[in-house]
Amino acid sequence: MDTATGFLIDGPLTDGFKFRKGTFELKPFEDNDVDIRIESCSICGTDLHVATGEWKDQLYPFTEITGTVIRVGPKVTLVKVGQRVGVGAQASSCGACKPCQSDNETYCQDGIIHTVGSRWPESGIVSQGGLSSHTRVHEKWAFPIPDGMDSKYVSPMLCAGITAYSPLVSYGNISGKKIGVIGLGGIGHFAVLWGKALGAEVWVLSRSRAKEDAAVAMGADGFIATGEGELWHEPHRGDFTLILNTASSATDFDLRKYLSMIDVRGHFISVGMPAEGGFTLSAMDMVLNGVLIGASHIGNRRQVLDMLQLASEKGIKPWVEEMELNEENLILAMKKMMDSKARFRITMTGYSKAFSIA
Amino acid sequence: MDTATGFLIDGPLTDGFKFRKGTFELKPFEDNDVDIRIESCSICGTDLHVATGEWKDQLYPFTEITGTVIRVGPKVTLVKVGQRVGVGAQASSCGACKPCQSDNETYCQDGIIHTVGSRWPESGIVSQGGLSSHTRVHEKWAFPIPDGMDSKYVSPMLCAGITAYSPLVSYGNISGKKIGVIGLGGIGHFAVLWGKALGAEVWVLSRSRAKEDAAVAMGADGFIATGEGELWHEPHRGDFTLILNTASSATDFDLRKYLSMIDVRGHFISVGMPAEGGFTLSAMDMVLNGVLIGASHIGNRRQVLDMLQLASEKGIKPWVEEMELNEENLILAMKKMMDSKARFRITMTGYSKAFSIA
Repeated sequence: MDTATGFLIDGPLTDGFKFRKGTFELKPFEDNDVDIRIESCSICGTDLHVATGEWKDQLYPFTEITGTVIRVGPKVTLVKVGQRVGVGAQASSCGACKPCQSDNETYCQDGIIHTVGSRWPESGIVSQGGLSSHTRVHEKWAFPIPDGMDSKYVSPMLCAGITAYSPLVSYGNISGKKIGVIGLGGIGHFAVLWGKALGAEVWVLSRSRAKEDAAVAMGADGFIATGEGELWHEPHRGDFTLILNTASSATDFDLRKYLSMIDVRGHFISVGMPAEGGFTLSAMDMVLNGVLIGASHIGNRRQVLDMLQLASEKGIKPWVEEMELNEENLILAMKKMMDSKARFRITMTGYSKAFSIA
Repeated sequence: MDTATGFLIDGPLTDGFKFRKGTFELKPFEDNDVDIRIESCSICGTDLHVATGEWKDQLYPFTEITGTVIRVGPKVTLVKVGQRVGVGAQASSCGACKPCQSDNETYCQDGIIHTVGSRWPESGIVSQGGLSSHTRVHEKWAFPIPDGMDSKYVSPMLCAGITAYSPLVSYGNISGKKIGVIGLGGIGHFAVLWGKALGAEVWVLSRSRAKEDAAVAMGADGFIATGEGELWHEPHRGDFTLILNTASSATDFDLRKYLSMIDVRGHFISVGMPAEGGFTLSAMDMVLNGVLIGASHIGNRRQVLDMLQLASEKGIKPWVEEMELNEENLILAMKKMMDSKARFRITMTGYSKAFSIA
């Protein structure tokens, strides 16, 4: 097998979403590679960029993949044929640089291959995502899924889930501490679920109260509507150990108010990637509490495995809408994502039917 | 004793520095207060702001004080009469807020009294600095000086020294790691000395090579002239655990180049306080290596005591010019500071003569 079948986004779109079936070439099979027959895939914000043509190549999107291993290279030790695995937004890294050598392979300096839209070295073949029958990745990027977990719940953990999880475990123990989550979308809703599972007191910050009920149902301990008045930050001065910014826009974003809510040497970490603008920041804004500002990029293998283990042990179920994979549903699903109406992630299933796999 | 004598900066200046002797009222003596007869004081960048009238009140400047305790309140337990102590840029904090209760009293939320120019609660008396015969502070802000240390070396440690020391010990162990110091002024030179004493590999980053010899003489392992060409950052990508920014200007400062030199989840910490502007920052600038950006404000009592102990054990001597305290020398010294010509700190001594104290 050196090709796979999938749904291709048909060129940069101006009038809605269109998909057509196509066949694409897989990268040459190497000694550490594994082939995966895909079973489910969730839709990520990144896929909207692909679909609307911000990314140039014609692409098969989706980077929150579960499936079954059907072939392993002769040097593979981490997974076995028949095993169920997940694949997220990254499909390979150089393995040799300082970040790769220190469990920080998502910050690989020269060899990051994204699951969608990167060119594999030597062959130059463009990597394609999970809206397809099969995928081929380096074994390090195939994450064994604990038994008993439903693939439809596992899928969104592999990009949105780990994007929220990694910063919650990378800057010190949050158990017993107060954390804030800005924005309750796909990533934000995972931040609430993981934050609670990790023992934190979790507050959601959102412009309006439209999602307050959902936040509370997810277990949030508090909710702040930042669109109501000017002094919403005042009662919380210095209270938060960590604020995770999952909002995708920096417009009308008064960073100083958020920073004032953080404890000494606490963290303000962005995981949303605002397309426009940024913050203007002076040392004076940070010196009152010595707050640290940063950004986080998905999460390493170790963290993915820990996250899946935590979800398995605690029976954590993300809020997922399941849809059967076909062109019509894809259009519906993408539209829902574009309008921020998914509650809070959509997983496409029924792959064997869609691709006529026995 | 409820007054002290000192040299007053005579109002906002437009044509150079002027000092005249004056007498000022000390705050009411409280149970945890100590009176200190001052022996030496170094000049800090802050004093230039005072001298040039950026701070409104007529003030007795200087915040790097050593002296001998001559009186203690009935509840004082941390120091004794006759003991030599240092005082830095802060003279009190509320003691009750979360930062104060967690050894972060320099980030006190409501009760920070600066050594110069703050109003003491209740009395409303303005705090005055070390260009005077005596000072009165809360015992927590009087730091015992290890025996055998020369006061002229201890003085500059109490503000510039601790400002450099605190960030070097606050974000993880730097021993065996590579750190960068931007700017070789009073604070930067301390960062080199402390960095080496703490076991780090220390690189100095400066616009030109004018201070390269000095950096090497202080023990710096490497020197980067950022004004030479465009690609000075390239060979160091991801190498530094911590970069300490002591530069006081953000003009022509290409933050992204510095950030690219930092290891995954490493720190870029500013201690200089640029008067103008700031950085424009997007999550994208930080996500390539998950770098953390922050600022640091002097350092807590625990860190000051550790720093003095380290200096004592390792015999660390900052580069200090000693000058006898009188009007003429003060004018010379302030001019030298203003022109960034001090190498690298000026300590005024001879207080007993200047103030006719037996």
